[in-house]
Amino acid sequence: MTRPLHLHPDRLFPADPATRAIARGLYAEVAHLPILSPHGHTDPAWFATDAPFENATELLLKPDHYVFRMLYSQGIPLQSLGINDPSADPRAAWRVFAENYHLFRGTPSRMWLDHVWAEVFGFDVAFEAATADLYYDTITAALATPAFRPRALFDRFNIELIATTESPIDSLDHHATIRAENARDGGWKGRVITAFRPDPVVDPEFVSSDGGFLDNLAKLSAMTGEDALSYPGYLSALRQRRADFAAMGATSTDHGHPTALTADLTETEAEALFARVTKPAPMPADAELFRAHMLTVMAGMSIEDGLVMQIHPGSFRNHNDWLFRTYGRDKGADIPTATDYVTALRPLLNKHGNDPALSIILFTLDETSYSRELAPLAGHYPALKLGPAWWFHDSPEGMRRFREQVTETAGFYNTVGFNDDTRAFLSIPARHDVARRIDCGFLARLVAEHRLEDWEAAELAVDLAYNLAKRAYKL
Amino acid sequence: MTRPLHLHPDRLFPADPATRAIARGLYAEVAHLPILSPHGHTDPAWFATDAPFENATELLLKPDHYVFRMLYSQGIPLQSLGINDPSADPRAAWRVFAENYHLFRGTPSRMWLDHVWAEVFGFDVAFEAATADLYYDTITAALATPAFRPRALFDRFNIELIATTESPIDSLDHHATIRAENARDGGWKGRVITAFRPDPVVDPEFVSSDGGFLDNLAKLSAMTGEDALSYPGYLSALRQRRADFAAMGATSTDHGHPTALTADLTETEAEALFARVTKPAPMPADAELFRAHMLTVMAGMSIEDGLVMQIHPGSFRNHNDWLFRTYGRDKGADIPTATDYVTALRPLLNKHGNDPALSIILFTLDETSYSRELAPLAGHYPALKLGPAWWFHDSPEGMRRFREQVTETAGFYNTVGFNDDTRAFLSIPARHDVARRIDCGFLARLVAEHRLEDWEAAELAVDLAYNLAKRAYKL
Amino acid sequence: MTRPLHLHPDRLFPADPATRAIARGLYAEVAHLPILSPHGHTDPAWFATDAPFENATELLLKPDHYVFRMLYSQGIPLQSLGINDPSADPRAAWRVFAENYHLFRGTPSRMWLDHVWAEVFGFDVAFEAATADLYYDTITAALATPAFRPRALFDRFNIELIATTESPIDSLDHHATIRAENARDGGWKGRVITAFRPDPVVDPEFVSSDGGFLDNLAKLSAMTGEDALSYPGYLSALRQRRADFAAMGATSTDHGHPTALTADLTETEAEALFARVTKPAPMPADAELFRAHMLTVMAGMSIEDGLVMQIHPGSFRNHNDWLFRTYGRDKGADIPTATDYVTALRPLLNKHGNDPALSIILFTLDETSYSRELAPLAGHYPALKLGPAWWFHDSPEGMRRFREQVTETAGFYNTVGFNDDTRAFLSIPARHDVARRIDCGFLARLVAEHRLEDWEAAELAVDLAYNLAKRAYKL
Repeated sequence: MTRPLHLHPDRLFPADPATRAIARGLYAEVAHLPILSPHGHTDPAWFATDAPFENATELLLKPDHYVFRMLYSQGIPLQSLGINDPSADPRAAWRVFAENYHLFRGTPSRMWLDHVWAEVFGFDVAFEAATADLYYDTITAALATPAFRPRALFDRFNIELIATTESPIDSLDHHATIRAENARDGGWKGRVITAFRPDPVVDPEFVSSDGGFLDNLAKLSAMTGEDALSYPGYLSALRQRRADFAAMGATSTDHGHPTALTADLTETEAEALFARVTKPAPMPADAELFRAHMLTVMAGMSIEDGLVMQIHPGSFRNHNDWLFRTYGRDKGADIPTATDYVTALRPLLNKHGNDPALSIILFTLDETSYSRELAPLAGHYPALKLGPAWWFHDSPEGMRRFREQVTETAGFYNTVGFNDDTRAFLSIPARHDVARRIDCGFLARLVAEHRLEDWEAAELAVDLAYNLAKRAYKL
Repeated sequence: MTRPLHLHPDRLFPADPATRAIARGLYAEVAHLPILSPHGHTDPAWFATDAPFENATELLLKPDHYVFRMLYSQGIPLQSLGINDPSADPRAAWRVFAENYHLFRGTPSRMWLDHVWAEVFGFDVAFEAATADLYYDTITAALATPAFRPRALFDRFNIELIATTESPIDSLDHHATIRAENARDGGWKGRVITAFRPDPVVDPEFVSSDGGFLDNLAKLSAMTGEDALSYPGYLSALRQRRADFAAMGATSTDHGHPTALTADLTETEAEALFARVTKPAPMPADAELFRAHMLTVMAGMSIEDGLVMQIHPGSFRNHNDWLFRTYGRDKGADIPTATDYVTALRPLLNKHGNDPALSIILFTLDETSYSRELAPLAGHYPALKLGPAWWFHDSPEGMRRFREQVTETAGFYNTVGFNDDTRAFLSIPARHDVARRIDCGFLARLVAEHRLEDWEAAELAVDLAYNLAKRAYKL
Repeated sequence: MTRPLHLHPDRLFPADPATRAIARGLYAEVAHLPILSPHGHTDPAWFATDAPFENATELLLKPDHYVFRMLYSQGIPLQSLGINDPSADPRAAWRVFAENYHLFRGTPSRMWLDHVWAEVFGFDVAFEAATADLYYDTITAALATPAFRPRALFDRFNIELIATTESPIDSLDHHATIRAENARDGGWKGRVITAFRPDPVVDPEFVSSDGGFLDNLAKLSAMTGEDALSYPGYLSALRQRRADFAAMGATSTDHGHPTALTADLTETEAEALFARVTKPAPMPADAELFRAHMLTVMAGMSIEDGLVMQIHPGSFRNHNDWLFRTYGRDKGADIPTATDYVTALRPLLNKHGNDPALSIILFTLDETSYSRELAPLAGHYPALKLGPAWWFHDSPEGMRRFREQVTETAGFYNTVGFNDDTRAFLSIPARHDVARRIDCGFLARLVAEHRLEDWEAAELAVDLAYNLAKRAYKL
């Protein structure tokens, strides 16, 4: 016996009937707005090549660290999920997933996946051990059809624009291919832009299987013709790559630092520091100071070239040594840490914070900073806005806490709409849908409590679902 | 076309109909209780001179840093609001405010201002660009009438008592004038008392346009006849001024420190430290230690003279250098910081915390301390009570979080009722009204969840609106 | 005139009628499940001797530091409650309690006590000054009857199993007596097990009226025949006592440290450190490092012997010097502190965190760590699970926050059900009842918001009330 799968039209709305009715009305006006996805991690190769996705496991299980971290936490070995093992049987991995789907009860992954099952693939039976093969076969068969190619899905998902994220040493070839296709008569018109994520060439402690900081600087030199091992050459190379990214549509940069520390060094200090961190094995304090200084430098470049600056601080990356050595980065072992913004951001803000030409979008994994630091900062500095609830907090309760703790001090207009921030392409509509429902529910409560007029809530619902992202990211 | 303005009688009550009915019933019993305002920043000159307020902009826009910080955050220059510019056209500034009133959606400022528009000035159309001039003219005209003089408003607002806040080097002349007026046969009977805020003579790093710490000590010497540059003379001068304040009705002191650090130095250590911090440019660590020591000294003086001690720690003042240099203090650039209480307060508490003759009212800008530190401390030490949700948290959601996070450990009777803490005189009734509504809503939920009997909630509603403040502040 | 006492059948359920109906249905299926109490502080002597409890004050007031800390905070001297004063009149203390029962409005103590009044003693009038003697006499009389002996109450409370907590230097004689009684033909069959709490022999700064760390090591040597003042002998002695505890039914250890710091020293480093901390007055940093190292050592022993490891960090014990000197430990003056887990636990986790044979149950007094640190850690590491809301947070709002902040990242299955964690034996059914009601209310909201199917919520309600504790604690 299988159980039915059904997405309730009122899901995620507050239970109180009067509030729910208001939420339902607000949602009706935003449910079908196009999707703006100004920050995320989809692969531009998908849209450049339009090659079909391989199978259910490759598309939906292996790339989703929200999913396999939970399975791993319950003692399920990553090898049984086929992670980093191309020879593993994808159907066997899929069955493990199905048998353990109850672990996701109460999590956003469950909401997103059920949406994918029902809306993208048309399932009307629930995902569980008994339906594992049905799901695997149905999904894998669908993926082989034209309707499930990346570009077709992009269009079906009503995506107006999506931004990917690339390193300065990425060739951007896929973006060039997409733009050529866009320009081709009768070509696909989907808008895919890049975003400039310089961590691999800004973080002296950067490591990955593709090479570390110094390797990356060598590549940067090669790509730009600058000597990226001299500080002036390094800055010129970065400016050049920012321009290259802008030419591929980028409207933003993105900075993923362990902390939010900023610094504002003199040229002399900066040159000396650069010399130290471009030696092998720099001191951790030098590495931190260099990252801090570069945030301020990047803010200055943003004032020059108009790229919006995103800061994503506070993740302790690769917390699990053995897992990192065995499986590499991004395997679910990044853990948030307590993050200070008030003293950390001050050097940057004292240099550039009063400049309305600058737009910095701040994120946090430390929810305690919402009401204590971020809303007061964004409710004062012209250069600051707040990004949506991020990563672990991109969830119904997390988004509610964000609105409840941020709005009273920063208002709605110092926030920037929703980011799906995902590489799980098929879940993008689900993620935006969850955000729209939660925002409509929050607005509905304000209306029900007579803190906002109904017409204001209607305006705000559209702003939160569409207008704020368009404006903040200059889309 | 203008939109209507209407204060809904059920505003801020929970949406659930049964809970709302309970809240409505509780509120009916406290809505018209007199206002006790034991901590705030109104200007005693208003009540001493009873001079009319000038115009809408001077009264409602320029002094309200909640308002102009939000406008500034959205790129509106402070000069366009006439801040620190007496020559600016007040009507032009008012129009900027009106055009941007939507920025306040979801903020407490919006709730307070709508209350002022409707209840104080009788508007029935909403504030927006189209009504900017109507508002400006109506308000400015009203302010010229006797009914809108400070004393008349004080009486109309049903204020039983208001406390202002003065520095030890304030002459208290306005308070003397008010008390003479009170005593005059047929004179105005409004009760206006002062509160003793010694930061300008306790904080070695104090700066303001009126002079710094050493200037203030010189003034203190002059006022008291003591040598405030010797430690014994300094303490005597403080004792003398505390007595002077008490003679002007003060029942409390107030201490606004960067942290909650306390220390308990020996006399010898304290004298040596005093010598160091009364030299120009003291070391920051010495300044911090001196503030810390003086909190303990002040607690001791409170045991002697019975003044209730308020501690308001954890604001990073003047975070924005350029703004501070250009516009001075209190321009919306004070940002909360993470604040420790547990180790910080221990020296003071170990000296005086078990003395029920002492009453310390603690505040926080760091909501994480509610359930972790403040409620456990106040739920144990006889000398500690908790002040209401403060500053950025003096808001519907902020007050709800305060009750939800504090009550289970500290109960209701270790809290002290509401503070409006404002210089925005016209919003005082609105602020107390919001607090009473939120508290009634919280109590109503406890009744609806059968965690409290209805008669207990009715008793508590009056306690929270009136009795606790009266008792805690010895009014 | 007295007031009625009535436990409403819908207490603690959400007010929204549809949600309440769902909660009521879920609760009906778990209300009568047996109680598993895998962590607590009842006295095994009660069950070993089955001696009657003495009187109302001795049983219900004096051991309950939740109760007397609140009374003390309001200026009521501990001597008036008979704390640490065997000669005090218990009826007089009881009257003080009754007169001040309103102080507990809004606190969990009030919920628990009302449950005890109504369900355990059958009162139908409220506890207040007017009923103080009625309560005292009725309770004291009841306690003298067979039905109120410890074993009879244990059976009446439907306790399937209770764990007490003992130090390694406890003889476990009472447990031996209970097990003999269990084995006796026709003997009492109640299951009472111990848990291994090694703080007195692991914390070099441990002090108590029964002796400090070095005294305890001497006792440990005497009990085990090992030389517990040599590091190898110390480890052997600990292993031996763990085995002794397991023989008395223990399935878990418990570690109450000031912080969550762990370390992983080499044998040489550990021996040298052990030598330093077993000298009188060790350095605080050495004491902290030794505790840190021993957590990792204990995790290793847990892998060997299968005992589940509980870590309860972050309480600043004996914050109030005078109270500690006058009244001793556990008098309501333990205060939570901000607690880091991410860097603190890393040494232990890097050594053992990927081992599914290890099960560590983490607790916190710092709610900010729920969504930021604990849920992400437990949602990744196979060895980690999260204990329920603890101590000050074992309350309706506290348990709601726990579920709201933990579930989305860690799911339900990385949590371990409820702990009553109490020495207040009579309140155990009340505490489990509150937890079951709050969990059912939380699940009901998820169902009402269509985030969970009703059949899943029904399964989860039983898991949270019973199955998860059974599995996590290997009961």
